[in-house]
Order: sequence, then C-alpha cells, then structure tokens
Amino acid sequence: MIKTAKEFLQDLQNRICGRLAQINGDQSFSHAPKTPSQGGLSDPRVLAGTGPIEKAAVNFTHSIGASLPKAVSESRSDLAGSPFEAVSLSVIVHPSNPFVPTTHMNLRLFIVKKEPVQWHFGGGYDLTPTYGFIKDAQHWHLGARSSVEEEYESMKKKCDEYFYLPHRDEQRGIGGLFFDDLASDNFNFTFTKIEKIGESFLPLYTEIFERRRSEPFTDKNRSFQLFRRGRYAEFNLLLDRGTKYGLQSGRRVENVLASMPPLAAWCYEYPIEKGSPEHLLTEFFLKPRDWITPANHPT
Amino acid sequence: MIKTAKEFLQDLQNRICGRLAQINGDQSFSHAPKTPSQGGLSDPRVLAGTGPIEKAAVNFTHSIGASLPKAVSESRSDLAGSPFEAVSLSVIVHPSNPFVPTTHMNLRLFIVKKEPVQWHFGGGYDLTPTYGFIKDAQHWHLGARSSVEEEYESMKKKCDEYFYLPHRDEQRGIGGLFFDDLASDNFNFTFTKIEKIGESFLPLYTEIFERRRSEPFTDKNRSFQLFRRGRYAEFNLLLDRGTKYGLQSGRRVENVLASMPPLAAWCYEYPIEKGSPEHLLTEFFLKPRDWITPANHPT
Repeated sequence: MIKTAKEFLQDLQNRICGRLAQINGDQSFSHAPKTPSQGGLSDPRVLAGTGPIEKAAVNFTHSIGASLPKAVSESRSDLAGSPFEAVSLSVIVHPSNPFVPTTHMNLRLFIVKKEPVQWHFGGGYDLTPTYGFIKDAQHWHLGARSSVEEEYESMKKKCDEYFYLPHRDEQRGIGGLFFDDLASDNFNFTFTKIEKIGESFLPLYTEIFERRRSEPFTDKNRSFQLFRRGRYAEFNLLLDRGTKYGLQSGRRVENVLASMPPLAAWCYEYPIEKGSPEHLLTEFFLKPRDWITPANHPT
Repeated sequence: MIKTAKEFLQDLQNRICGRLAQINGDQSFSHAPKTPSQGGLSDPRVLAGTGPIEKAAVNFTHSIGASLPKAVSESRSDLAGSPFEAVSLSVIVHPSNPFVPTTHMNLRLFIVKKEPVQWHFGGGYDLTPTYGFIKDAQHWHLGARSSVEEEYESMKKKCDEYFYLPHRDEQRGIGGLFFDDLASDNFNFTFTKIEKIGESFLPLYTEIFERRRSEPFTDKNRSFQLFRRGRYAEFNLLLDRGTKYGLQSGRRVENVLASMPPLAAWCYEYPIEKGSPEHLLTEFFLKPRDWITPANHPT
C-alpha cells in the first residue's frame, strides 16, 4: 500500500514541480532529500523568487513513526499513540500577482500498525483568492466535482468547515475538497479516488493561474494581498491541524512551515471601502456558498 | 483595588502614547474607546506609519467577565470559570529601523470574585532585537533589576522560560521580566512593586530607541528584520497565552492581534553567514544568559 501511494505521490510531485517551474520561467525548485534515522524520506522542494510565483513548496514525506500524533485525525483519536507509516504530498503556491489565488493541496495515506492494520487517506485542495472572480470559483468547483462525483457535496462542506477562522468569523478562501478518513474494504478502490483527485489539481489551478497572471495591479492591490496573507498565516499557526501534526511529530520545522507566506502584513482596522473589490471578497467570496450555480452573484 | 490599578495604568498609557508619538514626530495614536455591554472599557490606541515607529499598540482594557478563561494562568487553573474583573495595559512597539529592538510590556490585575476574593498581578516586559548589542542588553537588564531588586533573578528566569519557541529551540529575544501570579497579604505593598516596574519601562526602552534610531541600514538588514518578525508572529499565534486569553475571552480580535508585526516574512532556509551579525543574533543573543555581566561576549 505504502509503495503504491509513494510512487504515485512522488510522480505527482515531479510533475507539479516541473509545471510550476515552467510557469515561473524555468526557475528551479530547491532539492535536498533527506533520509531520517528511523527510515523514510523527507523531500521538500521550495521555489522562492521574483517570477510569477513568489513562493511555492511541494513537499513529499514518507514517515515511519513509533507513535501517531494526536493531530492526525480528530475523529480517530483512538489511533493516537500507535506505530504508523505515512506518505504525504503537500503543495502550497503563493503567487506574486494579487489577482492569482493562493492554493493548497495535500494528499496523505496513514497506515496504523495495530491488529488489524488500519489505513486511511486524508487531504484535499482549496483556493484562497485575494480578489474573487465567479468564473474562477465556478471553474475550480466544477473541476473538483468532476474528480469526486457524488462525494463532492460532502467533501465541499467539510472543506468549508475546516478552512474557517472562528476568531474572524470568516472562511480562509472559497474552499474545494476536504476529506479526513477516506477508507474502505478495498484499498485499490479508494486509491483510484485519490489518484483522480490528485490528477485533477494541477490543470485546474494552472488554468486559473494563466488566466490571471498578467493582470496589471496597483500598490493597493499588493497591500490587500499582503493583508490577506496575514489571515493565511493566522490560519496556519492558530488552527491548521497539518501544522500542529508536523510540529508534534518532530518533523523539520523549516519543512512544516514552508507553507507560510513569503511576506504578510497586519494592519489595524484595514480600511475597506463599501462596494469595492476588497469588500466583495470579504462579504461575498468568503462566505460558504454554491459556487457552481451561485445565486445573486454580483459579478 | 481595580480603581487604583486602573488609574495608574490609564495614566501610564497616556504617558507612553505621548512619548511614542513624540518619537514619531508627533504622529498621533488612533483613539476610539468603547464600553462593552457588560461594562468595563476597551481603549486600544494604535499608531502605524512611516516614521521611526512602524507600528505601536498601547491598549488598555477593563474587563468584567462571568467566567475566567483558562489561559489566564497556567498555575492557577482552579480559578478558571469564576466571575472576574481585570485591568490590563499592553504595549508593543515594532520600530522601522532594524537596529532598534522590538519591545513588549504588559501589566494586568485580575480580581476573582469568589469567597474569599482573590487578586493577582501578572505581566512584565521583554526586548526582541533584530541585531544584538551588548550595551543595550546590559542597559535593559540593569534597568529591569533596579525596578524589582531581589526579585530580578526569578523574574528574569521566568521571562526566558516564557518567551521561548520550542519548535525553533530559540528564545524570542533577550528577555527581561515576567511574573504570573504576584500577590501578597497586602495589596498596596504589591501594587507599589507594579508601579515601579511600570515606571521603569518607558525610559529604559526609549533610551535604546534614541541610541539606534538613526543607524543607517541596508536592504539586507531590513530583510533580516522582516524574517525575524516572522518568528515574532509564530510566537504570538502558536504560543502566547495573552493572545489565547484574548481570543478565548471574546475580546475584539482586532485589538488582541494589534500586537502582530506590520510586515513579516518567511523564507525557507534563510541564508545566515557564519560570523555575521545575523549569526551573532541567533547564536549568542538568542540564548538565555547573564546580560549584566555577560561572559565571553563577542562585541
């Protein structure tokens, strides 16, 4: 099981890095894989630069551990403390242009070594625009729905629930797919679902990237992007279970926090004008809604 | 008790704001005090601009609450859930010049309304340089010691313990004073200690500010400052009990997070050259040590 998932995720990692490097004018990712003393593999790849991508991290990890951290699953707390093996691919892209959305994708397989052996997949992908576009939101969610078919509604709902900042009463972005404990009696059956989700991510995101990357932007747009990235940092540090898991499991901090924005701002009472595109983001786009047939949409 | 502490903290707030505004060329603080429905006062004052101070928040709060949040005291968890009244002054200064250190100060009085009524003070102040100077560290700690005399050693140790980032194995800065549960049989006796600590803060910090504010700096210095502010953001969001308390107690998020840096950067594997001033910060200044008679200091 691990081998099958590992091969798929590493191949996907190569393809995602290749395509993102190409978008960025062939600027390449850092590449320094490490084998931890307990076995496994840490293969973080990070791109930071001055091209259309300000920062991207595409990290593959194969972990072998003696004790499953609590943060791995809220609903499967019974598994905490057991020996485990896991493979995971995490992707984050912070684009330079404020009209290109930030994205995040994660796919992971956990195998808990207790009798009987238990396995489950977790992951998903979500989109965090600084400026909202109905066309992009529809495209993103149509693609997400195609990849999971009848499971779309529940995975979309879970995504909205997860990427929520209670202290701001605000969504992180416009969501996508999220699943926590995907398992069945048939590994290959479930793995096929994971492959479909994994394969759908890159073309979906890069189409939006290409659509928006050349939009001219002002200092005000950039300032709003940095301000919104502050919310992203708040989510990652205050709330994200992936971050908690990473820090709890003793993974290299530099890799766990590679998802942090390259630059972020906090502004007391950021001035947002009623009816502005910035206002539209917070009032319309950062509320959970049906993005495939959005009612009363203003654009 | 509340009245005495409130008067002192509000007067101190006025004086701190006045002096910081003067440093910043008389740019003034925002001022929009609010009275919450349950009584009390929220008086946040924030300065953000282009002068020598990039952002400062000097917030006074008088809270009246039905249930004391857990985060208020690690050692007094028995008090959680009781009705309480509290006054607090929080100060944070993020200077523009990378050679001027960031500082934070907090003084708070909690009165827990159970029989018999319990009260305690908490707070302290600490300094977070981007570039370390022995002269500044000595000045800071000599001043701190003068204000608390024989309690310096224990408060300094607690400060080092509290402002520590376990995931980085690194101090937030060079510390100062920290106390969590200062109480006695005599309110006035303890209050006099708090006054001394409160009075010592502003002249100590502004002397360092004036000493460093005109140092010329490069883009590299500024980039290192933004990178170090990322660690500050990590501390506040991942670890700080004041932030947790603020979010748990339902205070206005904008005020609780007014301490966040105006701009912060995360850089994967930030390049630090051996023997550079940046290296000196992390290797020498961010380790707990005796700052009054520092042994083997390199500058």
